[in-house]
Amino acid sequence: MEYTFSKRVQNLKPSAIREILKYSSDPNVIPLAAGNPAPEAFPVDAISEISSRIFKENPIAALQYSVTEGYTPLRETMKRYMKENHNVGRDLDELLITTGAQQVMDLTTKSLCNEEDVVLCEAPSFIGSLNTFRSYKVRLRGVPMEKDGMDMEELEKALQEEKKAKFIYTIPNFQNPTGITMSWEKRRKMYELAKKYQVMILEDNPYGDLRVSGEYIPPIKSIDEEGLVVYSGTFSKVISPGMRVGYAIAPQPVIQKMVVCKQGEDVHTNIWSQMVCNEFINKYDYNSHLSHLREIYRKKSAYAISLLEENLAPDVTWEPIEGGLFIWCTLPPQISMPAFCKEAVQRGVCVVPGNAFLTDENEPCQSFRINFSTPTDEQLKKGIEILGKLVKEMLA
Amino acid sequence: MEYTFSKRVQNLKPSAIREILKYSSDPNVIPLAAGNPAPEAFPVDAISEISSRIFKENPIAALQYSVTEGYTPLRETMKRYMKENHNVGRDLDELLITTGAQQVMDLTTKSLCNEEDVVLCEAPSFIGSLNTFRSYKVRLRGVPMEKDGMDMEELEKALQEEKKAKFIYTIPNFQNPTGITMSWEKRRKMYELAKKYQVMILEDNPYGDLRVSGEYIPPIKSIDEEGLVVYSGTFSKVISPGMRVGYAIAPQPVIQKMVVCKQGEDVHTNIWSQMVCNEFINKYDYNSHLSHLREIYRKKSAYAISLLEENLAPDVTWEPIEGGLFIWCTLPPQISMPAFCKEAVQRGVCVVPGNAFLTDENEPCQSFRINFSTPTDEQLKKGIEILGKLVKEMLA
Repeated sequence: MEYTFSKRVQNLKPSAIREILKYSSDPNVIPLAAGNPAPEAFPVDAISEISSRIFKENPIAALQYSVTEGYTPLRETMKRYMKENHNVGRDLDELLITTGAQQVMDLTTKSLCNEEDVVLCEAPSFIGSLNTFRSYKVRLRGVPMEKDGMDMEELEKALQEEKKAKFIYTIPNFQNPTGITMSWEKRRKMYELAKKYQVMILEDNPYGDLRVSGEYIPPIKSIDEEGLVVYSGTFSKVISPGMRVGYAIAPQPVIQKMVVCKQGEDVHTNIWSQMVCNEFINKYDYNSHLSHLREIYRKKSAYAISLLEENLAPDVTWEPIEGGLFIWCTLPPQISMPAFCKEAVQRGVCVVPGNAFLTDENEPCQSFRINFSTPTDEQLKKGIEILGKLVKEMLA
Repeated sequence: MEYTFSKRVQNLKPSAIREILKYSSDPNVIPLAAGNPAPEAFPVDAISEISSRIFKENPIAALQYSVTEGYTPLRETMKRYMKENHNVGRDLDELLITTGAQQVMDLTTKSLCNEEDVVLCEAPSFIGSLNTFRSYKVRLRGVPMEKDGMDMEELEKALQEEKKAKFIYTIPNFQNPTGITMSWEKRRKMYELAKKYQVMILEDNPYGDLRVSGEYIPPIKSIDEEGLVVYSGTFSKVISPGMRVGYAIAPQPVIQKMVVCKQGEDVHTNIWSQMVCNEFINKYDYNSHLSHLREIYRKKSAYAISLLEENLAPDVTWEPIEGGLFIWCTLPPQISMPAFCKEAVQRGVCVVPGNAFLTDENEPCQSFRINFSTPTDEQLKKGIEILGKLVKEMLA
């Protein structure tokens, strides 16, 4: 049979990162390309304990069908937690549990965007989300990044030009891939622009709890009195990504449509993992767990940056970071970035070529993304040494 | 803000069943509307044991990110199992693990159908799947059911008329909601028609293992030498629905597109539950577990039918069943079905009005669906007695 696929998927390609990650299954390749939490960051004993207790005390609830909106106690927990800690959530909002934050991107796009509508996004931005938007055949318009987040003049220009713009997609904290954090001024400005042009904001905050330096900046959603913001949170970086539990906090009419779409996608999110997350946050010392994670990543990021300084400076430059899992490195103009990444894999080090994060992968790009949470310290050292040697050879 | 939603979701309504199920949260309402496995059907001890072992032996693998295609050992297990037991899977096929079977419906539609394409389905059919198809703005064309499955003349007529037909959706075993099983002759005929008109078949088989009488009939996918069939399987009815683990077996080019779409929806399926399913099938006596389930449902269905005979015959008629979880009952013409269902809820019994399962909910319908797996025997008895009394009153 000759298969004809829908127009929306005809040009979709598997995520470049996930393709690159296939090299990582080779244990001899040093994984600087992934975005996995550090193995030592998982609260294994607590999860194991909670899980045993669930199967002793309440097994049927953990195995039976549940409601699409999510496990009620977890929804209540997260509403309270986000209100108390981040001033997120108003009477006009509702909370939906999703199968990872990726599903928030999916349900938001599915609910709001027709084919040929426009999503405004940071350039560069997280390829996983860009691919979700593309899978609904929306057009992406990238807005350049500055040291403190999106260029607001360019954003306003884009809002004036793109009459079919439906939402602005942003990762305000320790953005993937650049590591950049949006300033408080720009967050307020973005909200004002969204209000002025009546487009929504999709605020994706997977790394917010992983700040290792600098001052806390509240989410855009914390000032959302008008119901313009879909806030996306996740337990992937703070409890476990394998569980696939995330959540959306958004105006009720939007959540209602997302619920109907979620019914058609997976009925509800794995209920055991929702129960585990709820117990972990309520019955264990969640704040001290988060401090422990920050300590792990503070050390790992500092070590990675010391290695970059030692091996790649001054030829290669990078964005300063205050948290997250990534460092965005830029090669000198004499070196071809794609050739560099390709040769790095040959020498046993995986990094992500920066053009993977562009709305148009064919645009020129001199940057690549390094992850410091997945590799061991030994792998980081060896990997960055190999990259340093490669830079020197390619410059010679 | 005034929200404008995408055209595809503007007319989507929450599943009528899920809305009705909200009554079920009232412990005084007898739940004959759900489709939950019987609580005693869950292998609680085995799952608890496996889960503890996973957290002792391999916790990081159960908590870390995994690949979109699914946990490799489970994929190998299911390929072998489906080949050996059902002759499903050829060299041209591939297997993808999904977040429940609902995601197979979603990914198949997303990959194959443009807006305004047509899906041919049994009339009536499972509302959850119909809503998934609708969420991609495809048009549904219902093909009437006969005692042994879809009317094949009507199917051929529909295939001739619907030039934009993309696939035929069928639940061949113990169909939801009618309980009807498609004969072997009709399965072969449907395959021949799909080949002749070059449309695909989406074969949804959630209840296949729950046969309580009659002879095994092989899936349509067992004769699929041409790569026309997307086969959907699930662990929801045989291990646990709360885990949300299903799978698709389909031609490789189709699976490749489904994988890209799944990356954008939820990255991968909860990995702990994939590991649990794999261990349960390989290390426990899976066949004797299935026999145990069939014994539970043999008793429950026989009891339900004896109660129907006692309380509702001959005024109400129903389709004979050989398995599954549902009985499709038809009221005499003097009784208004919607009025009957509404009054039943008032008297504390939930059933699903049959029009929920039609491609056009406004078509006249005299039937309602009863589920016998969720209620206890006491609830079944009390519930069907109430329905019987109501019928007599409405006829009087």
